[in-house]
Amino acid sequence: MAEGNGKAEYLVGVDMGGTKILAGVFKHSLECVGSSKLSTKSQRGVEAVIERVARCVRDAVDEADLSLKQVAGVGIGAPGAVDSIEGRVIFAPNLEGWKDVPLKKALEKHLGVPVFVENDCNIAVLGVHVAELKAKPRNLIGIFVGTGIGGGLILNGDLYGGYNHTAGEIGHMVLDISGPKCGCGNKGCFEALASRTAIFQQIKAGVKDGQKTLLTEMLGADLSDLRSGDLRKAIRRGDKFVDKVVESAAEYIGIGIANLVNIFSPEVVVLGGGVLEALADEMMSVIVETAQDYAMPGTMKGVEIIASKLGDNAGITGGAVLARRETK
Amino acid sequence: MAEGNGKAEYLVGVDMGGTKILAGVFKHSLECVGSSKLSTKSQRGVEAVIERVARCVRDAVDEADLSLKQVAGVGIGAPGAVDSIEGRVIFAPNLEGWKDVPLKKALEKHLGVPVFVENDCNIAVLGVHVAELKAKPRNLIGIFVGTGIGGGLILNGDLYGGYNHTAGEIGHMVLDISGPKCGCGNKGCFEALASRTAIFQQIKAGVKDGQKTLLTEMLGADLSDLRSGDLRKAIRRGDKFVDKVVESAAEYIGIGIANLVNIFSPEVVVLGGGVLEALADEMMSVIVETAQDYAMPGTMKGVEIIASKLGDNAGITGGAVLARRETK
Repeated sequence: MAEGNGKAEYLVGVDMGGTKILAGVFKHSLECVGSSKLSTKSQRGVEAVIERVARCVRDAVDEADLSLKQVAGVGIGAPGAVDSIEGRVIFAPNLEGWKDVPLKKALEKHLGVPVFVENDCNIAVLGVHVAELKAKPRNLIGIFVGTGIGGGLILNGDLYGGYNHTAGEIGHMVLDISGPKCGCGNKGCFEALASRTAIFQQIKAGVKDGQKTLLTEMLGADLSDLRSGDLRKAIRRGDKFVDKVVESAAEYIGIGIANLVNIFSPEVVVLGGGVLEALADEMMSVIVETAQDYAMPGTMKGVEIIASKLGDNAGITGGAVLARRETK
Repeated sequence: MAEGNGKAEYLVGVDMGGTKILAGVFKHSLECVGSSKLSTKSQRGVEAVIERVARCVRDAVDEADLSLKQVAGVGIGAPGAVDSIEGRVIFAPNLEGWKDVPLKKALEKHLGVPVFVENDCNIAVLGVHVAELKAKPRNLIGIFVGTGIGGGLILNGDLYGGYNHTAGEIGHMVLDISGPKCGCGNKGCFEALASRTAIFQQIKAGVKDGQKTLLTEMLGADLSDLRSGDLRKAIRRGDKFVDKVVESAAEYIGIGIANLVNIFSPEVVVLGGGVLEALADEMMSVIVETAQDYAMPGTMKGVEIIASKLGDNAGITGGAVLARRETK
């Protein structure tokens, strides 16, 4: 494919999160040729966030030495329930005021390029399915562990959204009815047991109770700048406490996977998100063992549980896949 | 449709359970014209059970004053993982020795009629979808609460079996990691908290601890003949203890439904099985309230949670639907 000849042959994928917006420019082959990142600043309101998304797209296109005229389409993942046919965000709990927002229409007005909207975890699992997994499993679950836990489902070869376009809300699957309180108001949700937020809370609570850890040496007593990568460093230096907390989260992820395998019988379970990106080496064997332990006999036969190599780029890659599919 | 003219225009549905075999003869309109019941006697071995299924089918056909020549096909639901294309039972945990059994082939040899095999909960949800629900929801979850808890999924308008044909094993979704031990070896499975087995165990344990209940007056101190219908009678006579145990099971069913609605976004959740058949009036309002309480905002919009009116006939009706579909 010739570059820079003015033809609209590039694709932009956008991952719009509660805290940051990522945009990537891709060739049709899904090679990334430029990217950009902006904070979301959701508190500034819906219009401001849409403008920031548009700016992030422009920045990424500029980063790739291209112009918007060379972009065939933009695919964007939004963190909530999405009506992908209308390109409308029905509800996004982590974005202030996002209820029934016509994101497709608004962004098309800003950019003058066709825009396609999907749920962020659906987009990410689509990215993994198309760009990473050569075997193209017909039934695939993507589990993304970051600030929260989200899921995306590919069933019978295609994205599955369900009746209210809300399928894949696996983070609020109750695993331990008497477990810790979740942000959603329930107790013992998957997310309240195994997300980065849950891991950090357990570590901070432990430190408050006098637990010794290398993390306080590394970051100070209040651990205000704690990141997933710090956990990895502490574990590799022999920090038993951090190791235990992370292992417990990995066990819950394994139990969550067993539940989902029992329910869905997928061929592949792929794990992504910031926590897995930082801690896959530490967590994967515990996750796989626990899942095999908890799943019903027969359900796990031939099922692969893997960590995605796309990491934080799964979302923007999936956005490009969506744009490629829709502009064909 | 003319009857008794010798044309093969009847359908037989079979529900093969761990304790009993049910067979029903149906017109193409899905009107049941005769049925039969036999105990399974799984301990006698695979061959013996297959012969009993064949006998049960013959009995039902005879009951309807028909002959096997008038039967176009037999649809059968088996309690386990089923390869429906080959008509093979891959694994049925509650039937002794049932591992990789070519049920279709064996029954066709016995009966001389085409036989089609599916998972029992899939068959039951198919029966409800086709024979009971006029709106034909595209995404439907069937939850069957009896000795255990099983599920059947209709996604995007069709039965969903997944990669290992084991989808719908919702009874072993862990809801309470520190809950009671389940038959599967895990703790706090949905089935260990809300099935008839779980309810009976809690009642028997309570009685052992000196708990007063009308059930012991009705059935004697050992409660050996306890049935779901007895619970209904006791509750209606004001038995607070039984009411509390049943309410707790209903709450767990509500939580299980919320998990499944978060994950699947179905349009309809239909409840069936012996426990619901006996106790729908007592349980449904608690089930619905708890599900709405636990599900994520937005996911429950427009979602119906209903008790099937087909009761124990959901399985044989679904068997007839399968046979009708396959012999078209």
